[in-house]
Amino acid sequence: MGSKSDWGYMQEACKLLDQFGVDYDKQVISAHRMPNEMFAFAQKAAENGTKVIIAGAGGAAHLPGMIAANTPLPVIGCPAKTSALGGMDSLLSIVQMPAGIPVATTAIGPAGAKNAALLAMQILGLEDKELQQKIVDYRKEMHDQAKESSAELVY
Amino acid sequence: MGSKSDWGYMQEACKLLDQFGVDYDKQVISAHRMPNEMFAFAQKAAENGTKVIIAGAGGAAHLPGMIAANTPLPVIGCPAKTSALGGMDSLLSIVQMPAGIPVATTAIGPAGAKNAALLAMQILGLEDKELQQKIVDYRKEMHDQAKESSAELVY
Amino acid sequence: MGSKSDWGYMQEACKLLDQFGVDYDKQVISAHRMPNEMFAFAQKAAENGTKVIIAGAGGAAHLPGMIAANTPLPVIGCPAKTSALGGMDSLLSIVQMPAGIPVATTAIGPAGAKNAALLAMQILGLEDKELQQKIVDYRKEMHDQAKESSAELVY
Amino acid sequence: MGSKSDWGYMQEACKLLDQFGVDYDKQVISAHRMPNEMFAFAQKAAENGTKVIIAGAGGAAHLPGMIAANTPLPVIGCPAKTSALGGMDSLLSIVQMPAGIPVATTAIGPAGAKNAALLAMQILGLEDKELQQKIVDYRKEMHDQAKESSAELVY
Amino acid sequence: MGSKSDWGYMQEACKLLDQFGVDYDKQVISAHRMPNEMFAFAQKAAENGTKVIIAGAGGAAHLPGMIAANTPLPVIGCPAKTSALGGMDSLLSIVQMPAGIPVATTAIGPAGAKNAALLAMQILGLEDKELQQKIVDYRKEMHDQAKESSAELVY
Amino acid sequence: MGSKSDWGYMQEACKLLDQFGVDYDKQVISAHRMPNEMFAFAQKAAENGTKVIIAGAGGAAHLPGMIAANTPLPVIGCPAKTSALGGMDSLLSIVQMPAGIPVATTAIGPAGAKNAALLAMQILGLEDKELQQKIVDYRKEMHDQAKESSAELVY
Amino acid sequence: MGSKSDWGYMQEACKLLDQFGVDYDKQVISAHRMPNEMFAFAQKAAENGTKVIIAGAGGAAHLPGMIAANTPLPVIGCPAKTSALGGMDSLLSIVQMPAGIPVATTAIGPAGAKNAALLAMQILGLEDKELQQKIVDYRKEMHDQAKESSAELVY
Amino acid sequence: MGSKSDWGYMQEACKLLDQFGVDYDKQVISAHRMPNEMFAFAQKAAENGTKVIIAGAGGAAHLPGMIAANTPLPVIGCPAKTSALGGMDSLLSIVQMPAGIPVATTAIGPAGAKNAALLAMQILGLEDKELQQKIVDYRKEMHDQAKESSAELVY
Repeated sequence: MGSKSDWGYMQEACKLLDQFGVDYDKQVISAHRMPNEMFAFAQKAAENGTKVIIAGAGGAAHLPGMIAANTPLPVIGCPAKTSALGGMDSLLSIVQMPAGIPVATTAIGPAGAKNAALLAMQILGLEDKELQQKIVDYRKEMHDQAKESSAELVY
Repeated sequence: MGSKSDWGYMQEACKLLDQFGVDYDKQVISAHRMPNEMFAFAQKAAENGTKVIIAGAGGAAHLPGMIAANTPLPVIGCPAKTSALGGMDSLLSIVQMPAGIPVATTAIGPAGAKNAALLAMQILGLEDKELQQKIVDYRKEMHDQAKESSAELVY
Repeated sequence: MGSKSDWGYMQEACKLLDQFGVDYDKQVISAHRMPNEMFAFAQKAAENGTKVIIAGAGGAAHLPGMIAANTPLPVIGCPAKTSALGGMDSLLSIVQMPAGIPVATTAIGPAGAKNAALLAMQILGLEDKELQQKIVDYRKEMHDQAKESSAELVY
Repeated sequence: MGSKSDWGYMQEACKLLDQFGVDYDKQVISAHRMPNEMFAFAQKAAENGTKVIIAGAGGAAHLPGMIAANTPLPVIGCPAKTSALGGMDSLLSIVQMPAGIPVATTAIGPAGAKNAALLAMQILGLEDKELQQKIVDYRKEMHDQAKESSAELVY
Repeated sequence: MGSKSDWGYMQEACKLLDQFGVDYDKQVISAHRMPNEMFAFAQKAAENGTKVIIAGAGGAAHLPGMIAANTPLPVIGCPAKTSALGGMDSLLSIVQMPAGIPVATTAIGPAGAKNAALLAMQILGLEDKELQQKIVDYRKEMHDQAKESSAELVY
Repeated sequence: MGSKSDWGYMQEACKLLDQFGVDYDKQVISAHRMPNEMFAFAQKAAENGTKVIIAGAGGAAHLPGMIAANTPLPVIGCPAKTSALGGMDSLLSIVQMPAGIPVATTAIGPAGAKNAALLAMQILGLEDKELQQKIVDYRKEMHDQAKESSAELVY
Repeated sequence: MGSKSDWGYMQEACKLLDQFGVDYDKQVISAHRMPNEMFAFAQKAAENGTKVIIAGAGGAAHLPGMIAANTPLPVIGCPAKTSALGGMDSLLSIVQMPAGIPVATTAIGPAGAKNAALLAMQILGLEDKELQQKIVDYRKEMHDQAKESSAELVY
Repeated sequence: MGSKSDWGYMQEACKLLDQFGVDYDKQVISAHRMPNEMFAFAQKAAENGTKVIIAGAGGAAHLPGMIAANTPLPVIGCPAKTSALGGMDSLLSIVQMPAGIPVATTAIGPAGAKNAALLAMQILGLEDKELQQKIVDYRKEMHDQAKESSAELVY
């Protein structure tokens, strides 16, 4: 993520990866304050065996796009909610990438961070059927919880 | 895609897949006019050997999210530019998915369609090193073209 | 509604239906987590004797539109206020339906939920003159309260 | 509708009602230029045998809401696309009604006008099973057209 | 104003009128709940000796425009801040009036209410030089306070 | 107005003033390119016998607010439609004035320019009953035209 | 800055200038309440030896642009976050300057105020190599802090 | 600039620099397609004797911010108008930089490109009094043209 302050919502991604038992590395790599490290990280990611990169950032959120520009790996971008504009700035800065360099963008805030982890696991699950099954099971659980929640609709 | 009218920008995805020699199937499956076919398509996609689904739609663009809700495969959503609101409606309808069901969203319009194809190939490239190399080569070409275009900056 | 969390504002609809003595059924049916139940619900609603369906959802709020796509009954959609974008996402996802499948959209949040109940009763009131009269009476009350509230304008 | 200039998109509603053989009356009643006629129209609509009112307007689009305030009948509002703001002004002016007076809002522009007619017929169809069947048939046609349109996806 | 809840910010207008010693009448007249009273009020305002009308409302804020449509007097509209959209809905509903019926719109919230009072007094001040002088004096005071406030810029 | 390019829509105001026979002076006074003239103009307007000032500007449209800051006369601001943002920038720059200095803001573009002239005449009409009557007559005409336009609603 | 209330975020600029040991003068100069002082300040700034002007304002934030119109010095504008619209109004009022009079605009709120100070110092640093080195050192510190912050990513 | 397609509006900057006789170098350096060249360019700019950098880009416009992150020189960012969102995406991606790395942002489109050149020359003019005088002269010309343009206000 681009800043320690992104940890507030990006930890949702980590928690889910932990829950599913998927290996990952987490770090603050600021596009603006650590540009060289960012490039080094992105340019070596594929050969280091990384499969998917999740990048969360807010405001003029350049991190996901700049990492994507430096790796052929799929990059998922998570827009932070921002104090002034609610995250519309983060969303547009991440999703409106020019033709040639995609960023797989998820929703603003914690839901998007959670979904970034799920999307990464859906990608990994293409070759790891056990992981894919865990996603199917996770959805089954969500389904059951949603179904049962009707009983809780009381004034 | 959700409508024949989406072909205007979604063909950018097909053209790129053709250029890279990647097999794909293209069809109009309207979330609102063909709901049963949409569900059948999504629910059988994984067992039919599909790896990645690209869905383009505009306005209250439900197609990507509803397909995502019915498959454990990664789903990429491409928001159409719209006449009244420029595509802000399509973008928010696709990207603001609730926690649990991600849609990998790309930019509004043709750039996003092109990038959806690239993102799909980046995902497939994780296991298909030849395809991954093609992406690296494609970027090299883009790089060279961009570099040479400075010479064209004349009044 | 699409999630238990929508109960916060959607209960305004139920309270009003209770007050008017109109029969209704309330449940959580998530478009994304319970897609099959959603389709079954929508496709059987007409033959089950349902007259009007009220659906509340937030963010990429697909529930109202997807229910509308599966029933010839009138469907009313209530956009939830959202943390990041204030409900603009919910509103556009619900109201910007393509030609062919309308969703009768009300205001964002509790006012919209209340109005969904009133709209449903206005529809039912076309054949149920007693109910229509209750709406007229309810408005009379609102009128009187508004008129009297001038007296409360004190510093 | 609020102005002759709204006829550009509102005729979509009329065309569909004609096609379905539903009786209707169409007129320009400007909220701002014909306020007394507007009130008279709205206040007499129920006793005149009107069932549903469709109102299209743009900008500070007061017509749908002001008609709704003067009748217990269901009122459907169709926001016009506007030159400066794309119709966001029309949409918010129509949909953001206060608790107590709902307007069933449809999409901006021609799609919304078409859907207003369909919504009105879905309401009337609750008691007119022949009309409801026509909607089911219409959807079947839309479904078939959408399905067949895949064949037209050629460069 | 359109609702007792508008008193929160509209009282700023009253306080300023009190401070300047200008006669006014304040009331809740809801466009949607008291349409007949609203029309009667507007249509009789000129002959009753009213000079300027200030109308505050929120959301689909029809009150200022509908009053303007029923009187040749200048009407000032004050958009309320709203919970979901910050008042963008109120602003557009008030300011985007069609050609023919102006509403003199001020800023969203308390600043706009205060300014509505000042604007009204600037209008009245065209014929009442004493009142105009009070505005000049008021500005002198604001000027002096602003100038002195530099001294308060301390950490 | 702030630039010759504003003449495109601001001439609507002049045309209407001509039609009503109201004396006025029109000029380009750019807030940014002619700041001293702007201040001189505004500061002398009252003593020069000006009653109402209409200022049209686009983008960071400072003209109306800066004139208002330099005169106790009522100032009407007309936001220009802009190429990039449709006039949302002009609107917010004009209407969101701080407490103390109001600008009576009208709609974006030609409708707003026309309404600025009408608003100015409504203000002048408070003391000039003949002018007020002309506005009443003008509305009557608009009313009749609107009413008759129903006949033109043909496919 | 335009008002004492801007001190909340504008003090970030002052703190940074203090930390870097750069001389500056801070004052409230309201564009709307102190127009003459504002012009005098701007028109004399260059000859008084000022190098760069930082102006913070909110809403219809005319201060930066009006100062820029009265001096050939570079002017930096800092948009305040606003209660109703989050600062979108301030941003557009500051950044959308017409061709001829630039305002160097920074981000909404405290980050923008901080960056205004840095930008001013980057400008001064062109001729003051010691100051430029301090900026390089400051970035080195930010870099190191960002890098170390990865260790703090704990649940 | 980030792409040859930005030349359409960015040439306004070059034309003005030519007119003022200021030396500059222009090139396409794409943040996403030429990341290494971009970094090399930015990191060597100061030692190469560059004083100010102007960067124009559209959509997820990362170029200005990423250059700013790699140089202590002042960087000016020019948001391109975009087809879908009018340039709101470019603007937010450029202006909403995090604390620590400013980008001096100008208006969307050609006016902003022109102003970027002027801002750069205002910065250079701090030490080059001849250049500063040229800006003063240029403004004088603009002033005279604006003043004379009143004569052209004819129907």
